[in-house]
Amino acid sequence: MQSVVPFHSGHAGLKQLLGGKGANLAEMTNAGLPVPPGFTITTDVCRSYYEAGMQLPAGLMEQVHQAMRELEQAKSQGFGDPAKPLLVSVRSGSVTSMPGMMDTILNLGLNDETVQGLAALTGNPRFAFDCYRRLIQMFGNVVFDIETYQFERLLHRLKQRFNVSQDSEVSAEGWTELIGEYKAVIRKEAGREFPQQVEEQLALAVEAVFRSWNNARAKVYRKVHQIPDEQGTAVNIQTMVFGNMGSDCGTGVVFTRNPSIGEPVLYGEYLMNAQGEDVVAGVRTPVPIAKLGEEMPLVFDQLVRTAEKLERHYTDMQDIEFTVEQGKLYLLQTRDGKRTAQAAVKIAVDLVREGVIDTGEAVNRIEPFHLDQLLHRAIDTDKPLHVLAAGLPASPGAASGVAVFDADTAEAWARAGRKVILVRSETTPEDIHGVLAAEGVLTSRGGMTSHAAVVARGMGKPCVCGCEALRLTDRAFAVTTADGEAVTVREGDALSIDGATGRVILGEVSLREPELTGELQQLLAWADEIRTLEVYTNADTPEDAAKARSFGAEGIGLCRTEHMFMSAERVPVVQAMILAETAEERAEALAKLLPMQQEDFEGIFRAMDGLPVTIRLLDPPLHEFLPNMEQLVVERERLNGQPDAEPERKERLEKLLRKVRALHEMNPMLGTRGCRLGLVLPDIYEMQIEAVFRAVLSCLREQLDVRPDIMIPLVGHANELQRMRELVTRKAEEVLGEFARTFRYRVGTMIEVPRAAVTAGDIAQHADFFSFGTNDLTQMTFGYSRDDAEGKFLTHYVETKLLPDNPFQVLDRDGVGTLIEWAVERGRAVKPQLKTGICGEHGGDKQSIFFCHGVGLDYVSCSPYRVPLARIAAAQAQLALGKPDARETAAEEPVTSGRSA
Amino acid sequence: MQSVVPFHSGHAGLKQLLGGKGANLAEMTNAGLPVPPGFTITTDVCRSYYEAGMQLPAGLMEQVHQAMRELEQAKSQGFGDPAKPLLVSVRSGSVTSMPGMMDTILNLGLNDETVQGLAALTGNPRFAFDCYRRLIQMFGNVVFDIETYQFERLLHRLKQRFNVSQDSEVSAEGWTELIGEYKAVIRKEAGREFPQQVEEQLALAVEAVFRSWNNARAKVYRKVHQIPDEQGTAVNIQTMVFGNMGSDCGTGVVFTRNPSIGEPVLYGEYLMNAQGEDVVAGVRTPVPIAKLGEEMPLVFDQLVRTAEKLERHYTDMQDIEFTVEQGKLYLLQTRDGKRTAQAAVKIAVDLVREGVIDTGEAVNRIEPFHLDQLLHRAIDTDKPLHVLAAGLPASPGAASGVAVFDADTAEAWARAGRKVILVRSETTPEDIHGVLAAEGVLTSRGGMTSHAAVVARGMGKPCVCGCEALRLTDRAFAVTTADGEAVTVREGDALSIDGATGRVILGEVSLREPELTGELQQLLAWADEIRTLEVYTNADTPEDAAKARSFGAEGIGLCRTEHMFMSAERVPVVQAMILAETAEERAEALAKLLPMQQEDFEGIFRAMDGLPVTIRLLDPPLHEFLPNMEQLVVERERLNGQPDAEPERKERLEKLLRKVRALHEMNPMLGTRGCRLGLVLPDIYEMQIEAVFRAVLSCLREQLDVRPDIMIPLVGHANELQRMRELVTRKAEEVLGEFARTFRYRVGTMIEVPRAAVTAGDIAQHADFFSFGTNDLTQMTFGYSRDDAEGKFLTHYVETKLLPDNPFQVLDRDGVGTLIEWAVERGRAVKPQLKTGICGEHGGDKQSIFFCHGVGLDYVSCSPYRVPLARIAAAQAQLALGKPDARETAAEEPVTSGRSA
Repeated sequence: MQSVVPFHSGHAGLKQLLGGKGANLAEMTNAGLPVPPGFTITTDVCRSYYEAGMQLPAGLMEQVHQAMRELEQAKSQGFGDPAKPLLVSVRSGSVTSMPGMMDTILNLGLNDETVQGLAALTGNPRFAFDCYRRLIQMFGNVVFDIETYQFERLLHRLKQRFNVSQDSEVSAEGWTELIGEYKAVIRKEAGREFPQQVEEQLALAVEAVFRSWNNARAKVYRKVHQIPDEQGTAVNIQTMVFGNMGSDCGTGVVFTRNPSIGEPVLYGEYLMNAQGEDVVAGVRTPVPIAKLGEEMPLVFDQLVRTAEKLERHYTDMQDIEFTVEQGKLYLLQTRDGKRTAQAAVKIAVDLVREGVIDTGEAVNRIEPFHLDQLLHRAIDTDKPLHVLAAGLPASPGAASGVAVFDADTAEAWARAGRKVILVRSETTPEDIHGVLAAEGVLTSRGGMTSHAAVVARGMGKPCVCGCEALRLTDRAFAVTTADGEAVTVREGDALSIDGATGRVILGEVSLREPELTGELQQLLAWADEIRTLEVYTNADTPEDAAKARSFGAEGIGLCRTEHMFMSAERVPVVQAMILAETAEERAEALAKLLPMQQEDFEGIFRAMDGLPVTIRLLDPPLHEFLPNMEQLVVERERLNGQPDAEPERKERLEKLLRKVRALHEMNPMLGTRGCRLGLVLPDIYEMQIEAVFRAVLSCLREQLDVRPDIMIPLVGHANELQRMRELVTRKAEEVLGEFARTFRYRVGTMIEVPRAAVTAGDIAQHADFFSFGTNDLTQMTFGYSRDDAEGKFLTHYVETKLLPDNPFQVLDRDGVGTLIEWAVERGRAVKPQLKTGICGEHGGDKQSIFFCHGVGLDYVSCSPYRVPLARIAAAQAQLALGKPDARETAAEEPVTSGRSA
Repeated sequence: MQSVVPFHSGHAGLKQLLGGKGANLAEMTNAGLPVPPGFTITTDVCRSYYEAGMQLPAGLMEQVHQAMRELEQAKSQGFGDPAKPLLVSVRSGSVTSMPGMMDTILNLGLNDETVQGLAALTGNPRFAFDCYRRLIQMFGNVVFDIETYQFERLLHRLKQRFNVSQDSEVSAEGWTELIGEYKAVIRKEAGREFPQQVEEQLALAVEAVFRSWNNARAKVYRKVHQIPDEQGTAVNIQTMVFGNMGSDCGTGVVFTRNPSIGEPVLYGEYLMNAQGEDVVAGVRTPVPIAKLGEEMPLVFDQLVRTAEKLERHYTDMQDIEFTVEQGKLYLLQTRDGKRTAQAAVKIAVDLVREGVIDTGEAVNRIEPFHLDQLLHRAIDTDKPLHVLAAGLPASPGAASGVAVFDADTAEAWARAGRKVILVRSETTPEDIHGVLAAEGVLTSRGGMTSHAAVVARGMGKPCVCGCEALRLTDRAFAVTTADGEAVTVREGDALSIDGATGRVILGEVSLREPELTGELQQLLAWADEIRTLEVYTNADTPEDAAKARSFGAEGIGLCRTEHMFMSAERVPVVQAMILAETAEERAEALAKLLPMQQEDFEGIFRAMDGLPVTIRLLDPPLHEFLPNMEQLVVERERLNGQPDAEPERKERLEKLLRKVRALHEMNPMLGTRGCRLGLVLPDIYEMQIEAVFRAVLSCLREQLDVRPDIMIPLVGHANELQRMRELVTRKAEEVLGEFARTFRYRVGTMIEVPRAAVTAGDIAQHADFFSFGTNDLTQMTFGYSRDDAEGKFLTHYVETKLLPDNPFQVLDRDGVGTLIEWAVERGRAVKPQLKTGICGEHGGDKQSIFFCHGVGLDYVSCSPYRVPLARIAAAQAQLALGKPDARETAAEEPVTSGRSA
């Protein structure tokens, strides 16, 4: 068995044997890059170690010593040689990255003699003794299992004695004193002396690293990340290099391209005669990397060439740590560099143009989630922010303005040309004109699906919800920041919110406008060539529809008709409809709403000419359009206290209160909504369907290509859909007249109630399409009300790893996903041409899009701003998973007059 | 093709050919019973009729005339003979009973001449002309499709002219006049005369009955009941007999046993010289049947013997209609008699003892649902009731007392020895002492799962909920009855409720006490011999447990620990626990609750010595234990209006309001309940588990056989159960000490969240048992909140046949049932010894019990009073379905220390 593999003998393909770090160091070494020499003890040895009951295999240390001789030759140093001491690091290196879980020892090879040699050699005794005390502490901790605290408290006392606050202020004498104390700790706790024999140091360190594979935190980490216990860790032994041995030494970090904007120029900084930690500590100011060309032209040239070589080798922008020791360049680490979304897009496109990667790889390089940064206004992050509190990030984008505390003021001030942020405890439909007028919305109550959040997302306005730290009064709020500062924000004070993070910020902040660069458009075009999954959008207005189409949407997957009920001038009509006490009164209000809805639909059909438009009939319970009961009760108590209040006012209030009470539900999520409302009070749905077909008729006369898909919400039983379908067919025939025979449309349903998924075979008999409403399906499958879960038990669940993810963000494959797979299978068994898609918020999430591609859905639908990222993710899914299970493609042509089902 | 089958040629086995009625008449005829002779035109003819485009087959009427000749001979009468006219009835008779859906014509054979003959023969012209006008009306309606209204309005005018109000007051002259008018209607509407030819009457009538197979209401009925359209109807032609032709005639109804108490004595009444309708109309008072022995001893003897014969023949108590025509007994109908639950039990047991049926058949004869009548107090139904309104039948049983409108008064008056009915808009935990003191509870708001309903059912108190017709004020309610009567009930007025029907009744009513007779015990013992499904009970107190055990419960399937939090003296401690602002304050309150819960568990363990007790940890959200927010808001407004109110009072209110707000949930059903609460605030569950094991320890020391199964509610993800199981194991080891090694208990979960059913394979890895909580599982699978569905859209759904049943009453096989089957299958695949049961209210429903038996569950659990009916239904399921799918029997022995999972 080859237990020890020098870096020059390995390569990246040996990750299982050498671990990730060992394989990568080998890869770089063999690419001819200047890596400090070293070798890897394989993961096989780790397994043998445990199989033998935690005994190093016979003959291992002989192989290690042999490998050490090679290192000595390569560095012209001697392990344990006081004159030119060779120092090494001993690090774990598992197959799957387990950052920080296992142990590392640096500076191995120092003892009472070699430390003197290092001091002489570097001319820096302070440095040498610092290295030594670090070795003793790390060794004591890792090998002898002594708590770090035992060492740290001695260091703390030493600094008090020397009256200094920073480690860097401790003198060589101080370290020498501490080394004596550290040795005493080892003696007391381990019952033996710190080993002066460097070979003994090495053997003990290797064994300790193997032992750390089974420490408590590594075991937990493996369990959580499902890493097999038998994988084992490798041990990497590498010679140490120092950038602080003189004026021909230095250290730095470079990116091969600008990580902020993507420009293809070497980017980074360095320090002469310094160690890596000095760069980080900020004691000295690092110098831009270009300066190195003047100070050490040869080294700089070598660095430039090395960077290019590394980028070609790894085919991506690299983040490189280097050290120059006595004029010689060493690479300590290289990895794919972190970058902004903007840079990621530019770099990927540039790499294709440079012939380094192909278009598929370029698409794969983009993290779809990061595109969000590019498609909303964002806070210019270079400026410092005065963060007051954080709420729920309910609708992305940032906004600045002055605080106002009611909708009327918001509207008045906005009309006067001021930018306002509307602050409310929660919003109701009566606040809509204020939301419309505001730059953004901030509420102290309510969750991600609260009225404010839903409306704001619908309008594409930034919104922060449920910021419970705010103590709201009539015209101000008070808040205590995380730092304990008490702040009061009054009407007219400048305020900003960041809907992407939930931050509430005092004062105005500068904002960055979103841009859809040429590079991004190029990347999206490549993605479109690759993907098979269609990308639709959720849009309720002609404006949103047009915007989404400009972002590449291929249809509307969800047009929520209730949002059309919520605009300022319509709310009174909707309320009149709800408060109607006779069928006639209701009919009168509905007759007023009909032309309004018709106009909405016409606008949307025009914007989506030639593309499908999925219209969902009214979904929320009626009380959402009425004021909240608590307010009314308070108002009544107040009115009762005023003997001179007009009786009509009281009467109106009593009527409203009666209706609100009658419509009050214990669990509105599970109450009279969706098609239940449509079946109990069919006149509302009749009006909506009539408006759709009137709009169709009007658009047909304009020679538009109209493709309506009528979607019935909240179906749980096939009978519900069957009866609603009959209603649609009847209305279509009534309204369309002669067109009814030839005009094509689909009738389908949301699958959002678990029972609908379970009985999908029955339901498919009456459906032309299924659209999985994964928000509600997740709520009911888990039994979680999103409003009551997020920020409460669900947050606890995700934090304590009870759940791998928030299922409202990442689709739950095992539960909700199983129901979707089952429903698709049963539905297609009954109707092979059934069109299937998803229209919950998961439609814009990468993992969920992968799932949708995998189960063979026809489309995903997401908010307009997420359409670009969905296009990328859909292409990535195709690249990763290939074509979904072979099956017939959904009918491209909709059915005639809804009768095919 | 034999198109016509005389009664004497058929038998009960020919139902497909002769229809139900025809086959039954044939069966009776061939049993030698005196049935008026007749014959059946087969369902084949009906099919031929439709296949030929609605034409009677050639030759049919010849066969009919031939059969009519036989009837003439048998009766010595002539069809159309003015001297001794033969009259017949023509009735439909489908294979599957479709009551009232198709048409019937009586008295066929009357015309202007034969009516005179009938008048002479009976000596009763009034009767003869009444028969004739009825024929013309029925004939006009059925054959010529003339609306009944056209005839009824003429009858109405006639009565006005004659100044009489009852049909029976119309004279022969009146009828003669009306006959003329009716004929004119026929002439005008049908364009022809009423046919005087009796053969023509017959042919038209036969065709009309066939035509009625496809009338609108019959088609709808078939669709709803899934009766095939091609089944067709038969036509029965039977000679008419009259009990009013003289003093040697009569008519009556008898039951072969007393249908009220089951006594094996002929029971019924009759009238001499009368027709069936006279008995019903109450113009003359019928005479008890025994009297017939004196008036017509021969006929009576024949009737007694016939009754016995019929009972033996049909092996069940019969309800027999008979007519005596000129000294001759005729049977017009026999059918299994309706009976009270008490009679049903006695008759079934008696029939076994008499050797008529076997024990399995006796068990099958009991409708389990009816047993409910026997096990609660019921209103003595002979007394007339003054019903004010109806609410939801929330907890069965009836109660009488005086109305009180708050819990304190209820308690005070009850202590003073008065029986009280507590009337509230809805109840809160603070009303518990009032509920405890009251005979029954009535609320104007809230559904079947409201606080009042849950608490009342738990205590076995009658309860009517959500009676929205009541207009409640402080110390009274007003109500307008269905008759439009306005009634006000004030504190102290006598009031009764019927929790089985939801009726609210003014005044006191007499009540019948429940009894568990020797016959019922015998029947239950037979059921126990047959059934394989175990029957557990839902019980939260030692008293309920003991009662259920006396009813035959074999374990507790659901012990709800939250009900233990709701007793009067505990609510303040529970509230203190919830309002605690520090961990110490909460710990203090929990420490007070611990001995209380321990005592509860000890009592239950003692009552169930040797039987399993399934203890569910706290399930409802915490705000259920606090006052309702609306009340608090009103109270605050009031306090704010009182400048001199004590500041402490305000402060306490504000604190309470803050907490209620913090705990307020949009959809509490889907919020922080069950194990979510247990995971976020583990100290509550720790206290409960500690109380369980302390009780175990104390019972073990008493040498009791304690068998606790600890049930974790609302698990949706395997990780939740895994973590809770760890907590149980840890607590068991802490508390049990040396017993921990050997003491056996189970840890399992409710399957009540759809995700739990879908991922049952994962969850089973940590579970010793699954208990399907079908209430919540139904709510979440359908997306119905029971509180918001019943009395609202769900009622509409059931009424309009969108759903076959209320899924909270009858388990939904297609949806919820599929999830249960899936979960059982996945769970057992992982753990073959997994114990499975059901603990929702479906555990007491017959259809649902059949389902549970069919999918192979180990037990059903239901409320104590339903245990007997579940025992019966479980036996019926075994008789109907046989042994469920072969599988390993669940482990009889629980696991050790919860570690086996």
